[in-house]
Amino acid sequence: MGAEIVSIGTELLTGLGRNTNADRIVEAVAAIGLPVEFITTVGDDSARLSEALRVAVHRSSVVIVTGGLGATPDDITRKTVATVFRRRLVLDETVLAAVRARFRQRGVDMPASNESQALVPRGAHVIENPRGTAPGLHFTHQETEVFVLPGVPSECEAMLSHYVVPRLKALGFAAVTGRRVVRTIGLSETLIAERLAGMETEGVPLSVGFLPHTHGVDVTLSASGADAAWIAEALDIAERRVEEAIGAAVYGHGRETLAEVAGRALLARGLTLSVAESFTAGGLGATVTSVPGSSRYFLGGVIAYSNRAKLDQLGVDPAVLERFGAVSAEVAEQMAAGARARFGSDLALSSTGIAGPDGGSAEKPVGLCYLGIAAADGAQCVRYVFGGGRAEVSARATSYALDLLRRHLNAGPGPSPKR
Amino acid sequence: MGAEIVSIGTELLTGLGRNTNADRIVEAVAAIGLPVEFITTVGDDSARLSEALRVAVHRSSVVIVTGGLGATPDDITRKTVATVFRRRLVLDETVLAAVRARFRQRGVDMPASNESQALVPRGAHVIENPRGTAPGLHFTHQETEVFVLPGVPSECEAMLSHYVVPRLKALGFAAVTGRRVVRTIGLSETLIAERLAGMETEGVPLSVGFLPHTHGVDVTLSASGADAAWIAEALDIAERRVEEAIGAAVYGHGRETLAEVAGRALLARGLTLSVAESFTAGGLGATVTSVPGSSRYFLGGVIAYSNRAKLDQLGVDPAVLERFGAVSAEVAEQMAAGARARFGSDLALSSTGIAGPDGGSAEKPVGLCYLGIAAADGAQCVRYVFGGGRAEVSARATSYALDLLRRHLNAGPGPSPKR
Repeated sequence: MGAEIVSIGTELLTGLGRNTNADRIVEAVAAIGLPVEFITTVGDDSARLSEALRVAVHRSSVVIVTGGLGATPDDITRKTVATVFRRRLVLDETVLAAVRARFRQRGVDMPASNESQALVPRGAHVIENPRGTAPGLHFTHQETEVFVLPGVPSECEAMLSHYVVPRLKALGFAAVTGRRVVRTIGLSETLIAERLAGMETEGVPLSVGFLPHTHGVDVTLSASGADAAWIAEALDIAERRVEEAIGAAVYGHGRETLAEVAGRALLARGLTLSVAESFTAGGLGATVTSVPGSSRYFLGGVIAYSNRAKLDQLGVDPAVLERFGAVSAEVAEQMAAGARARFGSDLALSSTGIAGPDGGSAEKPVGLCYLGIAAADGAQCVRYVFGGGRAEVSARATSYALDLLRRHLNAGPGPSPKR
Repeated sequence: MGAEIVSIGTELLTGLGRNTNADRIVEAVAAIGLPVEFITTVGDDSARLSEALRVAVHRSSVVIVTGGLGATPDDITRKTVATVFRRRLVLDETVLAAVRARFRQRGVDMPASNESQALVPRGAHVIENPRGTAPGLHFTHQETEVFVLPGVPSECEAMLSHYVVPRLKALGFAAVTGRRVVRTIGLSETLIAERLAGMETEGVPLSVGFLPHTHGVDVTLSASGADAAWIAEALDIAERRVEEAIGAAVYGHGRETLAEVAGRALLARGLTLSVAESFTAGGLGATVTSVPGSSRYFLGGVIAYSNRAKLDQLGVDPAVLERFGAVSAEVAEQMAAGARARFGSDLALSSTGIAGPDGGSAEKPVGLCYLGIAAADGAQCVRYVFGGGRAEVSARATSYALDLLRRHLNAGPGPSPKR
């Protein structure tokens, strides 16, 4: 039996909140080789939480509960846990002192309602909260380990890494598993699956999965067993096979992003970058700079949303703009060349397109875009018609612009040979 | 009993995929007043899916299952559903013809594996898939309505709106409920909760919730009952009370974003905007243009990531940059004024700060930022020190820059009186 996450919060069932705690827990728990088998999400409702907790401890050997440990009336976790697991709530003076101290530190008196945070189910271990007032809880119910963590993401995360993960390791829940992710852009999921057909049935207990994102498809390879070296070797072989089968569409591994890969290639060659963005309107610059240290190669850019800005700020030729229109290969190339000249960068990327929902025509539909790249030897561009809504079209254009950069850098001369 | 979502996909339990289908279903189902009470997430594993389905039909009156209807070996839903609900799988010739036709349309032969998509549990209604090959399923198990939808988001969404929602309404699952969301920026959750203390206990069956985001706190008001007019009135009154208690920190309602609110205010006054971004590096421009039609007021901007770009592209005074540093009120104001002059816009926003993880000092810590606004009568700026990682700091700065614009527009003269 594996782990189960029970996420508590009405906002998670009304479309208002994203369950980021579950994402973090999945990641941390999977990293030690303990598979998460169920995530159950319930609202701030005592009866339904009780039901979810009963099901969870029955079918899972580790249950991690998050949320509802605050001091407002919708925080029902402490009481419900006590009732379900038949443990009387006891006021813990040490916890109370800690909650009081935290308020004092902020220079305010503790509201009376916060006293409830010092109630601890009898026999439960209190997990210290270095970032807030709600303490966490840990106890064993029959043979299931139950952890109860606050819903505030930073507090949940701190307890997860400082207490839950080390505790699970100490309790013997860590196993030998391996997982690799090969990231691709430019090929469809079906095409990739076809090229990899048969990999799963070659005698290796390997599981191959495909995960399409807005920006491409991830191929996941998983294996588990008793021998760590054997698993690593099997995954190495599988990874190489995937890379051979897919070729240049592979841009990275694990959690690597296109921005990281392209940034590293720029650094390796000592090149700088600028951008000229029309319809992505800054999304490309923001993505490039999502990488810490990107200031070493990224100089800046122009958001040329209006036609006027394309002429004035990037030096696009008015006659070219007039003849081909703002969404054209010619303008994309001139934009890239313009940014390169203005910022004095080695390379420049550009985007011009129609994000929608309006502005499309039969000839130039919503989703059409031209992505340009300028280098010392001139500018080039690629044309795409992306599907999806306004946000997806823009996100896809950003990814494919970075891919254009990546392919350009891969095709170009490599770093000077080390002497 | 309410609705339950069962989401299938190992990627959802390994941190690779985000459960966007659940978000959409929650939204669509909540909109007709049917509360989602549980979301259960399981991997592509037949035994655990069986367990989840058994639990779900037992405790929920509507179960919506998504994922695992493809034609690859990890697609186990069809078979598992048939086994759990004891319905033999029958090859449906009409479905098979439709799958074949879809492949023909793409100009390719149907792979033999896709034949499995035409297997239908006996007695189940087939939900047409206008966007892909996997048909959906609907049947009644004991007194529970079970819908099985594909995991591809666009296909899931199409079936949801074209079949599931109308069907649920026809089956009498729609109820009268109301929900309002009041969106705020600039006050902490605790402070807001204090100002609204007592609202819930004033005799109205009203539920008040607080949802903190990176960009602010949403206050949610929910009520349900038999009389739609009464609910609407109670929510109107509650909404006004929230607005009075919170004041200028309220920026919008429902799903309105700061970018929409600020954009509307610009349009109402006939004003144009440009941006000068240092560390947000395009995030501000991208957020402004996330609103369809933003080209009516947004002209463009400069991403001045390097100091050189601040001088060359925005005309920041080298002496000022030298004396106060790039992250300073003076530079933020000159950047805004520079963008305003270059783009000829009525207003301009600027950002300069330290996103981290490196680059901070005792005097100028990570998270410090200055956000500027320039208008005809000069430039001003605000200073913040934001918490969180690189992405959060940048996202907060973007939100607070839009808030600065919003407050500026609210304080300024209104639109000219109509004559």
